[in-house]
Amino acid sequence: MSQQKKIAILGSTGSIGVNTLDVVEKFSDKFEITALTANNNIDLIEAQIKKFKPSIAVIGEEEKARKLSEKIGDICSVLYGAKGLNEMAKETDYDILVSSLVGFAGLSPTIEGIKRGKRIALANKETLVAAGEYVMKLAEKHNSEIIPVDSEHSAIFQTLVGEDRKNLRKIILTASGGPFFSKTAEELKSVTIEEALNHPNWSMGNKVTIDSATMMNKGLEMIEARWLFNLPKEKIEPLIHPQSIIHSMVEFNDGSIKAQLSMPDMRLPIQYALSYPERLPAQFVDTDFAKLSALTFHKPDYEKFRCLQLAFDVMEQGGLKPCIMNAANEIAVDKFLNGQIKFSEIPDVIESALEKIEMNFTDELETIFECDRLTRELFNQ
Amino acid sequence: MSQQKKIAILGSTGSIGVNTLDVVEKFSDKFEITALTANNNIDLIEAQIKKFKPSIAVIGEEEKARKLSEKIGDICSVLYGAKGLNEMAKETDYDILVSSLVGFAGLSPTIEGIKRGKRIALANKETLVAAGEYVMKLAEKHNSEIIPVDSEHSAIFQTLVGEDRKNLRKIILTASGGPFFSKTAEELKSVTIEEALNHPNWSMGNKVTIDSATMMNKGLEMIEARWLFNLPKEKIEPLIHPQSIIHSMVEFNDGSIKAQLSMPDMRLPIQYALSYPERLPAQFVDTDFAKLSALTFHKPDYEKFRCLQLAFDVMEQGGLKPCIMNAANEIAVDKFLNGQIKFSEIPDVIESALEKIEMNFTDELETIFECDRLTRELFNQ
Repeated sequence: MSQQKKIAILGSTGSIGVNTLDVVEKFSDKFEITALTANNNIDLIEAQIKKFKPSIAVIGEEEKARKLSEKIGDICSVLYGAKGLNEMAKETDYDILVSSLVGFAGLSPTIEGIKRGKRIALANKETLVAAGEYVMKLAEKHNSEIIPVDSEHSAIFQTLVGEDRKNLRKIILTASGGPFFSKTAEELKSVTIEEALNHPNWSMGNKVTIDSATMMNKGLEMIEARWLFNLPKEKIEPLIHPQSIIHSMVEFNDGSIKAQLSMPDMRLPIQYALSYPERLPAQFVDTDFAKLSALTFHKPDYEKFRCLQLAFDVMEQGGLKPCIMNAANEIAVDKFLNGQIKFSEIPDVIESALEKIEMNFTDELETIFECDRLTRELFNQ
Repeated sequence: MSQQKKIAILGSTGSIGVNTLDVVEKFSDKFEITALTANNNIDLIEAQIKKFKPSIAVIGEEEKARKLSEKIGDICSVLYGAKGLNEMAKETDYDILVSSLVGFAGLSPTIEGIKRGKRIALANKETLVAAGEYVMKLAEKHNSEIIPVDSEHSAIFQTLVGEDRKNLRKIILTASGGPFFSKTAEELKSVTIEEALNHPNWSMGNKVTIDSATMMNKGLEMIEARWLFNLPKEKIEPLIHPQSIIHSMVEFNDGSIKAQLSMPDMRLPIQYALSYPERLPAQFVDTDFAKLSALTFHKPDYEKFRCLQLAFDVMEQGGLKPCIMNAANEIAVDKFLNGQIKFSEIPDVIESALEKIEMNFTDELETIFECDRLTRELFNQ
């Protein structure tokens, strides 16, 4: 009998969390759940707890923790809030921490997992966008494997298996182009929330879907890739590929290109992040090439998708700029979803934050948290 | 200073040979030529000998050997004929034997290289089609690496680097579909030699180009793949991809697919076969995805391309059937190029040979040679 790997999920009721549990259920002989966390969705986490029987659960607020405790009885203990997340990440018995909280909140518990030398199945973008240099150094120090869960970074990770990274010429990060790929800059000014939430290929949470519409998603992924694969910006090339079949590519110094592809299904990269270096037999996706529509490729339009240009700029500037951009983007997406600003004003909000915040960069986590806090305060006045 | 690898080329004036010399010239610090061979093209091999200074050359006939000797003076010794090829393969000092003779003639000297435990950069299809089982066993026994040069098999080889082959679900062997992909079976009856020689993507020799038009090329490649990667026929799937950008793909048991791709240029897989497991920096190809036409995929039509079905059948039947099919196909292509039969009669010739030749299979090389000879005799009467 093979030993089961113990898995803790940060954000089990979100899209990545739910898909991770699908994978764990399929391979119940390989994996078991030791911790689940959610922000608001009590009903879903209750069902998940009853099914997967973790030893600990974390929920957003104290009041909700009390309610959840009542519902699940003595199956597991329930913590709450940011403190609860950190405590779970520090104390629970797990081999793999699935880091799939959305936003900056995912950084702190992920760091706790890294400090324990655990494998991180990383879906939370902010961990590397805001604190990439710090996090990668920490992971090296504690011998913590960071395996990407994003389909794009997983594709790059998979295509690099067995290859010498010194031979890498560039990575080609594919992007669907989002729902507004064929709109003009003028048309972008009047798009509605509903249009922006209607992604052509992937079903994801609201924040990520809006980021995909502005292409900030790809910008954040470029910065993630920069740290994950230790690459200068010249070696990172975004490419529009509307069909989302090729999840990303790697070009080697001899001109040979390797791609990883399949019908879109997040369970595939999630499963790989859990099973690596093994692959486990599954039928989540079935790619029938003869039935696919033609695969096409286009250069991204940086003038129309200003967020992508902003991401390139802050990647080059480094320091705290990516952290500021990330926080301002979270605020801007919130404002757009609440009807406070127009879609085309999202990059304006980010630009204004990048202009206003001035802080000296130190490679300490406190500086990054402080920078994030200051950026958010800017818009709370 | 790194030591140069010594290279002997079987068939240096053909398309693969010429491209190999391009690669060797670019990396003259890594590779040197110790043997060159040609059948007829005295002028070209003379120029190659003067440039690359091998220690030995082989040409088709005694008379030509005399002429060539006169022209090149004492640069190197000149042998001739099948005996000369075998002697070269047995005696010359080389690390890598580039096996790029076209047709059955390539088998015997390739086997000599394998027996010496040398790396074989394999472009000659017949080595594995006619004698796959024998050759792979021999290679294992003598610890000889067989690295494919065909763009398709190189793609599969490259995508399998670092992966556990037990996780392989299937290989997807892409095919351009040749110049007649969109013709009807009826239209195929009246195609001319000129039309058949006009391949859309690759510039190759006449035999290979006709094989591409009948899709026998892909049939031969399926049988090669069967032996090279030790796969049952269920795990080998041909797929029409008219743009020839994706050179082949591999699907793993988790549903993840890896592809190797680039603009078509034979120097890339040749270089890889020479440099593996290293990659060497080169600019032979530059793939600009934004400039590519859409990539499309289609199921092959086995009724229209009867040679492909024949290849599937003999792959399943095994024994001497692939050897018979291969020999009959060489004869049939010759007859077509000489205007003796119509394009659509090529599979008829092969079918009649498969019906007429009856021999007991033994896993001995003599049986395979005898079977090849008998098949050819059938059409010499």
